Amino acid sequence: MNGEQDTGAALLDIAERTLQEVLPAEGERPSGLSDSVRYAVCAGGKRIRPLICLASAVAVGGRAEDAAYPAAAIELLHNYTLVHDDLPSMDNDATRRGKPSVWAKFGEANAVLAGDALQALAFGTAARAPRNAAGVVAALGRAAYGVVAGQVEDIAATGDTEFIYEHKTADLFVAAAVMGGLAGGGSDSDVARLRTFALNLGLAFQYEDDLLDGDSPYGCEKTEALVREKTEAAVSALQGLPGDASFLGRIAEKLVSRRT
Amino acid sequence: MNGEQDTGAALLDIAERTLQEVLPAEGERPSGLSDSVRYAVCAGGKRIRPLICLASAVAVGGRAEDAAYPAAAIELLHNYTLVHDDLPSMDNDATRRGKPSVWAKFGEANAVLAGDALQALAFGTAARAPRNAAGVVAALGRAAYGVVAGQVEDIAATGDTEFIYEHKTADLFVAAAVMGGLAGGGSDSDVARLRTFALNLGLAFQYEDDLLDGDSPYGCEKTEALVREKTEAAVSALQGLPGDASFLGRIAEKLVSRRT
Repeated sequence: MNGEQDTGAALLDIAERTLQEVLPAEGERPSGLSDSVRYAVCAGGKRIRPLICLASAVAVGGRAEDAAYPAAAIELLHNYTLVHDDLPSMDNDATRRGKPSVWAKFGEANAVLAGDALQALAFGTAARAPRNAAGVVAALGRAAYGVVAGQVEDIAATGDTEFIYEHKTADLFVAAAVMGGLAGGGSDSDVARLRTFALNLGLAFQYEDDLLDGDSPYGCEKTEALVREKTEAAVSALQGLPGDASFLGRIAEKLVSRRT
Repeated sequence: MNGEQDTGAALLDIAERTLQEVLPAEGERPSGLSDSVRYAVCAGGKRIRPLICLASAVAVGGRAEDAAYPAAAIELLHNYTLVHDDLPSMDNDATRRGKPSVWAKFGEANAVLAGDALQALAFGTAARAPRNAAGVVAALGRAAYGVVAGQVEDIAATGDTEFIYEHKTADLFVAAAVMGGLAGGGSDSDVARLRTFALNLGLAFQYEDDLLDGDSPYGCEKTEALVREKTEAAVSALQGLPGDASFLGRIAEKLVSRRT
């Protein structure tokens, strides 16, 4: 095994362990809620955002464990957005990750409520950050509002792709990195670097997604150039961080080479 | 004018002013979101929970202004629950406070999103408490999860009235008082007193609501006795608080004498 795999597996383990700690226990009353909430979060997913959060704490010279609660929080928040996006009144998706979506399995009312509970749980978990908890929660609050703003703009079909991508996708990447940096004890300038990294990575991730879906609003050639440009901007923002930023760099590399 | 009216008006003014400060500005982009969010919060309501929050800061010897952000936060959270409760997949209420409910005016998807944004805004606002911000957010997080648990139990129609009332109604009263006590600098025992006050007041409020609706699961006579019992328990919990608890007492008195 090489060191990068070790790091990735160790960070993933922190994320999964912390999620299990903060989720309602199996069968916890009311079981209708603990079942739907656990189903939404435990159905899989690559845990990209918690990995970014944990690796950001390391990149500012802190320990990954410092960012364990913020990392779980960003994954809970991400999963609430998926549960609500799938609703019949929204994207009307009956499947998610190859299984029935939450509303298809538990009914529409319970899916609205499962998403609501996941958002509540996300903030309660973020507040448990061992350092800068108020700043961590504030960063999550900005992203949680922003992601809704991006979705409203998307539904309104104004065609402002930049606004939608920045808010619907990049805001959660930014929150992940900023929360990790704050919980890891990063300085203001460290956190600003992480913000630039994550904003550009989030945009590169979304453009790459468009290429994978064969549906690029800017056309294939320009989108490929944008992926390269945003990835380079992300990686160069890592320069000057006081800790080990190599895992953040590796995440960036992996996310934008999903076609190969 | 008497002093109590002065205090009530002064506290209400802090609540309204802070709500205006933290809400998205009129026309803020995306306007579909700022319109629906403002519509939900500015449509009226008695602001009972923010008043409890502000008066709790005073009751522990702090200033009402210390609890301005927590007070706005609990009102934002309460309004998100109303927006989602009214949804077609939930209570299917097309009117609220004599006007079209949020989904009836803005559509179902936008109502889901307006509620989601209000919850995000609530937590971001709670994090701005000048003291004990992490504790304030944690208290809001417990209530925000609890209120969903109460609603899930209600929909499941298990008939466990106590569980439903404690969580669907009293949890937000408890959060209001606890957040106010923490932001006002109260000690652990002060905050415990406020919690007992608010739990009992929340239950009394709900029983009183049942009487007003002519729909008491325990029957009219037993419910009237419960209102008295819970109100007395609430008021006696205020004994020993280091600040001026008279306004909290006055709120309790007013809430349970709505029939007269």
